[in-house]
This record gives sequence, structure tokens and C-alpha cells, in this order.
Amino acid sequence: MAAKRPTIYDVAKAAGVSKSLVSLVLQSSPKVGEDSRRAVEAAIAELGYRPSRAASNLAAGRTKLVGVLIDDYTNLWFVDLVRGLHAALGPRGYRLSVVDVATADQAEHPVESFLSMRVDGMVVGMDPPNALTDGGLPPVVVAGTRRAPDEHVVDNFDSVANDDAEGARLVAKHLVALGHADLGHLSVGSGAAQVRRAAFEDRARESGARVVSTPYAGPATDEAGYSTAATLLVDHPEITAIFAANDVMAVGALAAARDAGRVVPDDLSIVGYDDTSLASSKLIGLTTVDDRSFDVGVAAGTLLADRMEGSAADPVAKVLEPTLTVRRTCGPRAK
Amino acid sequence: MAAKRPTIYDVAKAAGVSKSLVSLVLQSSPKVGEDSRRAVEAAIAELGYRPSRAASNLAAGRTKLVGVLIDDYTNLWFVDLVRGLHAALGPRGYRLSVVDVATADQAEHPVESFLSMRVDGMVVGMDPPNALTDGGLPPVVVAGTRRAPDEHVVDNFDSVANDDAEGARLVAKHLVALGHADLGHLSVGSGAAQVRRAAFEDRARESGARVVSTPYAGPATDEAGYSTAATLLVDHPEITAIFAANDVMAVGALAAARDAGRVVPDDLSIVGYDDTSLASSKLIGLTTVDDRSFDVGVAAGTLLADRMEGSAADPVAKVLEPTLTVRRTCGPRAK
Repeated sequence: MAAKRPTIYDVAKAAGVSKSLVSLVLQSSPKVGEDSRRAVEAAIAELGYRPSRAASNLAAGRTKLVGVLIDDYTNLWFVDLVRGLHAALGPRGYRLSVVDVATADQAEHPVESFLSMRVDGMVVGMDPPNALTDGGLPPVVVAGTRRAPDEHVVDNFDSVANDDAEGARLVAKHLVALGHADLGHLSVGSGAAQVRRAAFEDRARESGARVVSTPYAGPATDEAGYSTAATLLVDHPEITAIFAANDVMAVGALAAARDAGRVVPDDLSIVGYDDTSLASSKLIGLTTVDDRSFDVGVAAGTLLADRMEGSAADPVAKVLEPTLTVRRTCGPRAK
Repeated sequence: MAAKRPTIYDVAKAAGVSKSLVSLVLQSSPKVGEDSRRAVEAAIAELGYRPSRAASNLAAGRTKLVGVLIDDYTNLWFVDLVRGLHAALGPRGYRLSVVDVATADQAEHPVESFLSMRVDGMVVGMDPPNALTDGGLPPVVVAGTRRAPDEHVVDNFDSVANDDAEGARLVAKHLVALGHADLGHLSVGSGAAQVRRAAFEDRARESGARVVSTPYAGPATDEAGYSTAATLLVDHPEITAIFAANDVMAVGALAAARDAGRVVPDDLSIVGYDDTSLASSKLIGLTTVDDRSFDVGVAAGTLLADRMEGSAADPVAKVLEPTLTVRRTCGPRAK
């Protein structure tokens, strides 16, 4: 096993100076004489001493750690978000600790864990949990369109999201333009999904199409996408196109279509939301909405860093324009 | 925005006592009188004070933080590993900070970040980077079969892995039993993949089958699975079954098979490795090897916690038996 890590005391002893003097050298203080500085630097090199950033940041009242809360590692929506956060926060000296609520099945809520770790800030990439209604929080940025237990909570934080209503309207327009008039929608329980559903229904109906949305309000899973789509296709065989609340649900729907003998895209069109790596995989090639997760991450990281560094501006809500990514799961309505 | 977090000084002031006395109350010290204890507890409740675990752990020389290093969030084998780590480490008071080397595209290597954060331990779920050859490390457990830049490095750490050679033999046996005699293997550059390839080739050839392994030695991606399988199917049309180094590669191979007009499983059998949520999805239903990632995580977390709490036993290498998960991508060799 590795040797015990050298401490500042070991450095002081090896250099024949006091611990305070080592501290001054580490802070590049001009008060230290040249000889002492050289002796300390030689001892640091010899011992392989690594100053504890945790200790020095804590002394300055900060940890330079940002907690990122998501609700499901297997919904790959978060990967581009985290990449964007790293891009904005890494160069400013912050590190991320990503926690998935579903995976971290533990007594203490991850928000409590983050607070106990004294994170300098938090990014919330899920509908905010109750713990965020408490006071005494460090700066928080909400990523994505979210619904809080108390609806005023989200208004208190900076937020960055793609325009979910506009994304859903892009899907409705695309499907109507392909000639589809009987549309299905697979909804889920999240705040973003509610916005997508309402906008999709409105835009499709304005265009004269009929929409049947499923009443399912649980989490977005492959299994839920499969079962809700399977039921929808039995109850409404007239449906020729399905818009799923996100890519995970859409992939489940693709399996339900296959098992129902519906060929995609010839007999049935399917659209997702998020443009995850699953959607762009060679096998699936899902038509979906690009929700700009990387850009959302960059913007959220920048807002959070400004806030952690003292910005006292009023909370802002940034909205990015989504785009439709057309791949192979949609086609014209069969004659 | 949220108000400034109350400090231990605010509590002392509100309770009309010294900071040291507040500390004693927080440590449940018997030295504190009943009246003082009540006054401090009332002040804590009134102010919403939250003791800083970071500060108290740091004072005790520990952060209770474990760094987990992986190389790709989109390769979902890590999700069960992290679940297992949480299951073992959560109840012992440790928190995880998961960092994906690919996503954390930053100047400082994640291992350096972990060291600067003074993590109490690290779990390495990828081929160990060079940074782990340095001294001065906290306890490290290697998860999975790994190849280090210096091969002795891995021997210095505790490790937990499934038996990759046995898993690959299970695949060879399964395919041979289905009548396949011309096998393809899609390898990648990782240490685990090298072990899988050697064992697969040996076991298949012992049974009289022929094996063509691809020379690709890059990372496991959907795109690599697609292109290596596409080439293999053109160069070796006699192949009737493909074993991919992992599920990600296998899903790429499924797309290549479709584009080459080969029907799975009628004309071509495909097997993966890892048994990720992608493999078990309704759409894909991949036959694969269950590499026991959750159990690997539990065992790795337990070894690491023992080590962080002072165990000085010699490094151990735990090996768990994998199992074959049969789904819908393999069938008997076509006549």
C-alpha cells in the first residue's frame, strides 16, 4: 500500500523551519527570505508533499466543489449537461460531484450530503426536491424546465432550460407536415414533460390533428415507454405517429411497435426528446429534439460561477432554442 | 437568493456562550451543563445552523469522500457498480464523487483533483492512469480487470473483478452449442477486453471452431462496434456469430448486421458483455454476460472502507463468477 501522505509538519521538520513559515511559502508571501523559501521548496519536492486544497479552500470559506443532482444515470440526457458544466466551471477552478438520486439509495438525501460537504453551489437537473425549500442554501442553478413542490421555489433560483414548449411544437409541425392526423403522445410525470405535452397537444390540434395522450405520470423508463405505447396501439389503432416525452420512452415505444407488428417508419412514426447518444446510435437513429444540453450546461455553469463569486443580481431564467434532429424513425403517413 | 449560512460563531453569539462550548455540545460532550446545552440547541434550531461535516472531518484528518473514476458515462456498465459502492459505503458514512475522464475534459487530471480534494479513498473503474503510479496516494481499489501502464501497479491495490476469462468461455460454449463454427470477435483496447479475447479464442478453438478477431484497439464505442462489425461481415461472410467485447460494441454490431442484410438471430448471432440496461431494454434484448457489477461495487466498497479505516492487510484480488444472460440475439446456426 502507499505510504502515509506527508503533512505540512513533515515539510517544516525536514526544512528546519516552523509550520507557519511553510504556510507563508505556500501563499508566496514576500515576507519569506530567499534561503528559507529554498529550504521549504526542497523539502516539498523531496517529500512529495501536496498542499491540501480542501484545507486551504476551507480556510478561505470555500470548497470549490459544485454538487450536481440528477435523477437517473441511465437517462443519458445528463451526459452533455455535465460536459457543459465542466467546460464552464473547470477553467474557473471548480470540480463537480455528480449524484444520481436513484443510485444513491441512502438514508441521507443527496442535498443534505451536498450541504454537509459544504459545496459552494449546486446544479439541480431534476424537479427540485423538498430539501431545496429550506433556507441556508449556497447558490443553486436549476437546469431544465422543472416543477418544484412549492412553485415559487424555482423562481428564487437562476435557471437555464431549452424551450420545451417550442421543442414540442417542432415535433407537432413535423408530424403534421408528413401527413399524420392521428397522433399519440407518451407523457411522464416530470415538469418538463407537462410543458411538452400541453404544447404538443395545442399545436397539433390547431393544425386539425387528433391527439391521444397517455395518462401515465411515473418516471421515464424503457419499461414505461414499452407498456404505455403497447396499450396506446391496441386502444387506438388509428394512430400513425407517436411523440414520446423523451428518448428513453421512445426507445421503449420502438419495441412496442415491433411487437405489435407495426413497421417503423413505414406504418408508424416515433419521435423522442433530448437527442441522447442512444438516439444517435446507428441501431436506433431516432428522430428527436435536440434540447441543447451541452449549451444548457455551459450557461448554467457560468451563472453559478458568477453567483458563487458574489453576484447579487436578480435571478435570471435563460431559455435556449431547441432544434429538431431528423433521423430514421419518421416517415409520411401510409396511404 | 438564500441568506448567508449561519456559522458556529453565530450560534455561540445567540446562545451567549463560547464557540468552544458550542463545539462540545455538537460532540455530545458530557462536560457541558444542562442549561448551556439547552441554550446552544435552541440557538441551533432558531438559526437553522448546520454543522459543517467538511470542517469536522477535516479536523479529524478525513473528508469521508470517495472518488470514483470511470472512463465513459455513456457505457452504462458503471451504473450498477456505483449502486453497489453506495450500498457498501453509504451506511459507513462515505459519499461518492463520480468523475468520467471523457466528460471532465479539463487541464487537471481527475486523479489530481481527487487528491486535492483529499478524498479518503479512490475506486478506479478504468485502466489505471499514470497518475496512479505516483506515491502519496490514499487507499485505492481497482474495480474490473485492468491493465496499468506499469503492470506492477495494479498488484499494489486491492481489486475486485468478475472473471472475464470465464465470462468469455461461457460465450464460446454457448455459441458452439448452438452449432456455430465460424465465429467473429470484436475486441477493443482495454485490459478487460484483452482477457476476454484470449479466453474466447482459446475456448472456441478447443471446441473446433474458427475465430476471427478484429485488430481494433481503440475505445469501445457504438461507432467502433458498427464499423468493425461491418468490415468483418464483408471480409468473412462465413461468420455466423459475433462476440463483442462489451454491450456498447454489440449494439453497434446489431446495426451493422441490419445494414448488411443479416437478420439477427436467424442469420447471425450477436453476444455482448456487461448486461447493461441497454442490453436488457425491450428493443435490444441482447444476449450478454452478467459481469456482476453491483456485487463488484459492494465488494470494492467494503474493501475500501476497511482500508480507509486502517486495515493494513496485504492487497487482495477478489474475483466474482459471471453468468450468461440469454435473451433474443442468438439462435442456432442456419442450415
